[in-house]
Amino acid sequence: MNKSYSVAVIGLGSMGMGAAISCINAGLDTYGIDLNPLTLEQLKAAGATGIGSNGNLFAHKLDAVVILVVNATQANSALFGENGIARYLRKGTPVMVSSTMSAEDAQKISQKLTELELVMLDAPVSGGAAKAIKGEITIMASGSQDVFDKLKPVLDAVASKVYNIGKDIGLGSTVKIIHQLLAGVHIAAGAEAMALAARANIPLELMYDVVTNAAGNSWMFENRMKHVVDGDYTPLSMVDIFVKDLGLVADTAKSLKFPLPLASTAFNMFTEASNAGYGKEDDSAVIKIFNGIDLPKKQEK
Amino acid sequence: MNKSYSVAVIGLGSMGMGAAISCINAGLDTYGIDLNPLTLEQLKAAGATGIGSNGNLFAHKLDAVVILVVNATQANSALFGENGIARYLRKGTPVMVSSTMSAEDAQKISQKLTELELVMLDAPVSGGAAKAIKGEITIMASGSQDVFDKLKPVLDAVASKVYNIGKDIGLGSTVKIIHQLLAGVHIAAGAEAMALAARANIPLELMYDVVTNAAGNSWMFENRMKHVVDGDYTPLSMVDIFVKDLGLVADTAKSLKFPLPLASTAFNMFTEASNAGYGKEDDSAVIKIFNGIDLPKKQEK
Repeated sequence: MNKSYSVAVIGLGSMGMGAAISCINAGLDTYGIDLNPLTLEQLKAAGATGIGSNGNLFAHKLDAVVILVVNATQANSALFGENGIARYLRKGTPVMVSSTMSAEDAQKISQKLTELELVMLDAPVSGGAAKAIKGEITIMASGSQDVFDKLKPVLDAVASKVYNIGKDIGLGSTVKIIHQLLAGVHIAAGAEAMALAARANIPLELMYDVVTNAAGNSWMFENRMKHVVDGDYTPLSMVDIFVKDLGLVADTAKSLKFPLPLASTAFNMFTEASNAGYGKEDDSAVIKIFNGIDLPKKQEK
Repeated sequence: MNKSYSVAVIGLGSMGMGAAISCINAGLDTYGIDLNPLTLEQLKAAGATGIGSNGNLFAHKLDAVVILVVNATQANSALFGENGIARYLRKGTPVMVSSTMSAEDAQKISQKLTELELVMLDAPVSGGAAKAIKGEITIMASGSQDVFDKLKPVLDAVASKVYNIGKDIGLGSTVKIIHQLLAGVHIAAGAEAMALAARANIPLELMYDVVTNAAGNSWMFENRMKHVVDGDYTPLSMVDIFVKDLGLVADTAKSLKFPLPLASTAFNMFTEASNAGYGKEDDSAVIKIFNGIDLPKKQEK
């Protein structure tokens, strides 16, 4: 059955490229769509059936589409823009929208897809590039059982864990946004703690060691504060991504009329870091908003 | 050598009782001091060499003292109060002060011990009751090498990991306080995220499952938000403990003239929870400050 299953991945960043390669590895006929010709060549070399800056020439062959562009604006453009793929798809084709966006934006996209007789899975992802290329991402999805079923070969190919949150489009996006609330607050809290340690003349390597062996640890502390200890702010994920994601958290809370004492503070911290010129550095660079401390410098190898 | 090593543990709460039992299990002559006669009997039954509401009768035999009372006030009282043990100890006896307190309070106690020709290890602990009774707590300690050496039989008995942070009294306390900053912010952030999920009609059990399998996880989220999912606020560690500990974090930041955007917010959240009547509930009850949501109720068994 997989032999004849065709899928296009739109947006070949670190997550999209990994997901596309996982589809190829699972035996799906895989197409890649991106604006970067080098990325397309890379996917072609990895075994893609077809590539293009848009999908007009092969859209009619597809059994599924996966959207892994950066945000709702790009997703709308890829689907409904000048060279958007949606109008070329066969009726009933499932579209898995995996960009992080607000529930409201997910619902608007779903509505436009419905008008074209297409079906949507609201399916944000988590896991990072390393897991994506191994087909081990986590998907938090909402949609009809029909669309889950239609996308099964893709979900099996790219994910180690698929959460079915419910039928309503928007639930998947909301779960992802709440997850990002925690991720963002944990990075900012790690930065605040390490900055205070620096101020108190505690060696940061030792502080890192204590926390990662005790109840104060978080996944993000362990992963990101290592960058602070090493003085290496090469971006794996940038400060500006959390300006965006914590902005979505704020939008979500506003639409639900709900207060967010900590996440609103973390949003301010990342925004301040971005305006101070650190937007394109690793998100751990949020620690640079604290003055009056000396942070470790990167050791030349 | 252990045969003739005598240690008294002052403060037989969950950590102190565990530490004392670990000393007994390691073959040390162990004495227990507490104001609660039932607790003393319990330790006696576990094999203590001696017990008392104060240590006046056996202080002269001791090779070491461990203080595991709740705070600096109680530590001062146990050492220097009306029935304080310090004046009865032999010169040079090491006193391991393991209560969580400010660096300033640790330094004041050290100064008073020095006047009595006693030596101090500034040695806060982490790990909880379950680890204490197995002799597997983590100790973040500062003091002279001499006092580390003198306390070696005790450290070996009670801890699986001892961090030597440096010579200066106050460093140990500061590391512990910065650790508590993270622990407190992580509980409050977990509560904020779960409250938002409840507001968005996401099933909390599912939200918990997603987060604990993804990068938004923290040790505290995994441990404490389970209580929210179960609707069980039986106190393992109380809201009021974090009112105290985040208060120490605030004091530390003030003395270092350093801003704490997130920890100050978390402090407000726990203080608000305490004033709303939840001070003696499990610290996860900080989620109850959020209105306009329905939280899971405890299932009767």
